[in-house]
Amino acid sequence: MLAGIDLGGTQVRVGLARSDGQLVASVKTRTALLGTPQGLVEWAAAEIDRHRGRQKVRSITIAAPGPIDIKRGVLVNPPNLPWENVPLAALLSRATGAKVQLANDADMAGLGEFHHGAGRGTRNMVYITWSTGVGGGLIMDGKLHRGGHGTAGEVGHMIVDPDGPLDNCGQRGCLEAMASGTAIARDTGRPAAELFAEAARGDRQARIVVERAARYMGIALISLTNVLDPEIFVIGGGISRSWKLVYPTMLETLRSSPFIKPARRPQLRRARLGDRAGQVGAVEWARINQ
Amino acid sequence: MLAGIDLGGTQVRVGLARSDGQLVASVKTRTALLGTPQGLVEWAAAEIDRHRGRQKVRSITIAAPGPIDIKRGVLVNPPNLPWENVPLAALLSRATGAKVQLANDADMAGLGEFHHGAGRGTRNMVYITWSTGVGGGLIMDGKLHRGGHGTAGEVGHMIVDPDGPLDNCGQRGCLEAMASGTAIARDTGRPAAELFAEAARGDRQARIVVERAARYMGIALISLTNVLDPEIFVIGGGISRSWKLVYPTMLETLRSSPFIKPARRPQLRRARLGDRAGQVGAVEWARINQ
Repeated sequence: MLAGIDLGGTQVRVGLARSDGQLVASVKTRTALLGTPQGLVEWAAAEIDRHRGRQKVRSITIAAPGPIDIKRGVLVNPPNLPWENVPLAALLSRATGAKVQLANDADMAGLGEFHHGAGRGTRNMVYITWSTGVGGGLIMDGKLHRGGHGTAGEVGHMIVDPDGPLDNCGQRGCLEAMASGTAIARDTGRPAAELFAEAARGDRQARIVVERAARYMGIALISLTNVLDPEIFVIGGGISRSWKLVYPTMLETLRSSPFIKPARRPQLRRARLGDRAGQVGAVEWARINQ
Repeated sequence: MLAGIDLGGTQVRVGLARSDGQLVASVKTRTALLGTPQGLVEWAAAEIDRHRGRQKVRSITIAAPGPIDIKRGVLVNPPNLPWENVPLAALLSRATGAKVQLANDADMAGLGEFHHGAGRGTRNMVYITWSTGVGGGLIMDGKLHRGGHGTAGEVGHMIVDPDGPLDNCGQRGCLEAMASGTAIARDTGRPAAELFAEAARGDRQARIVVERAARYMGIALISLTNVLDPEIFVIGGGISRSWKLVYPTMLETLRSSPFIKPARRPQLRRARLGDRAGQVGAVEWARINQ
């Protein structure tokens, strides 16, 4: 059997699947309840043990927020978690006897959408998670591309306006600094969710803020299209829930490039798996690497 | 045997190699002397025939400037050549009996540098040709990435400044509009080569122009690093000959990103194969696809 774990700042999910990837059980809990890495490992190992029946679980993938060291399976210093340099893969491997891999959560969400969500049937897909921050995962020629150091897909840190404001990452004018929920809150002094709710009710000022963010996202889509030539963009994360507000401006911006002829213009789709994407992708990665 | 042909606006090169890729002959001529696609095909077929001895040439790749239709092997409308919708692969296949593929010239130059030039020994490489225009080729996990429609690697058309001037491609502020030889000539009213010569002699105004272009190239390198996580950038094309003038500013810009930690910062190297890169890559592609 296989297991996929999605470790988020708020929730942790564990999925158990047969070796062909078919899900047989899925459980979740609040991250805060587990307290420590040891607490997480004990809970996950117990849940896996409880649902595996008489089967052996051979391969487990943990999707976790970066920065992580995928080679050594170490959580370096996850945002939203007060943990540092935790050798999570080794700890869970000891507790379960399985081969355990640590992977980037946006990569896993992208992989989930590619195999079981909005990207099914394509070969080249860029997944973007658009939320408080902006992250992503790249599928090229049917495979996850992780890069030379396991950090590919950081689309939120492409520079879209070199004169833009400083991002938390230290760069000026990266996509995250121009279009993330954090950027919207910084520019307006109010939570992004509030702005999106007002824009949905038709508030003109809120709409302008939302459209500006969507335009910067569209500029990033143009650059990504020219560099990677994907067949499809799949957009997930909290802001993708306001699809009707952001989709028209993103599409219009992408279409405004005369260089990207209609024949090679990628589709633009909303993610389908919601909060389950990371867990689904982690199971898939455990299957591929079993 | 194999053959690789590099069709440029000025020169055409043909290389013949054994099936293991070892070059046995290389010839070139001026494109203008061939006149028509038929002239090119006849010349290339005759040269291949003359050098193949008693061996059969099974696989040929033609590297050509975009836009091309790689699936159908058609030159759509090459810049610098008054040809349109030429089914070049089919014509040469008929003349030689070989399997013939048409490929993008920047992709082939990148492949050449990866296997036999500055990128040897790496797995993830971004090749950039920096000249009148800006193009590129992506090698990921050891393989050429051509994208969903064969147009990946158009790094010159990433948008690096959305308020920048219009490029010939119709986009505003793409890398080509900010940093190409054409952009430098547009901004200064003088040929880029002249500016580079003056900058080399220490002219202060010329240096400012050159450094500004190199800074925009550096901004593109930051975005490409965050998206693709390459181990190395290999820079070719005419402007790379002024390496001492452009390298320090490119490196300084790349280093200015606190998000790109030294452990994952790509190397930055000058291309090694010069004008031969396209032909070398075309032979390699003919070998891979024989």
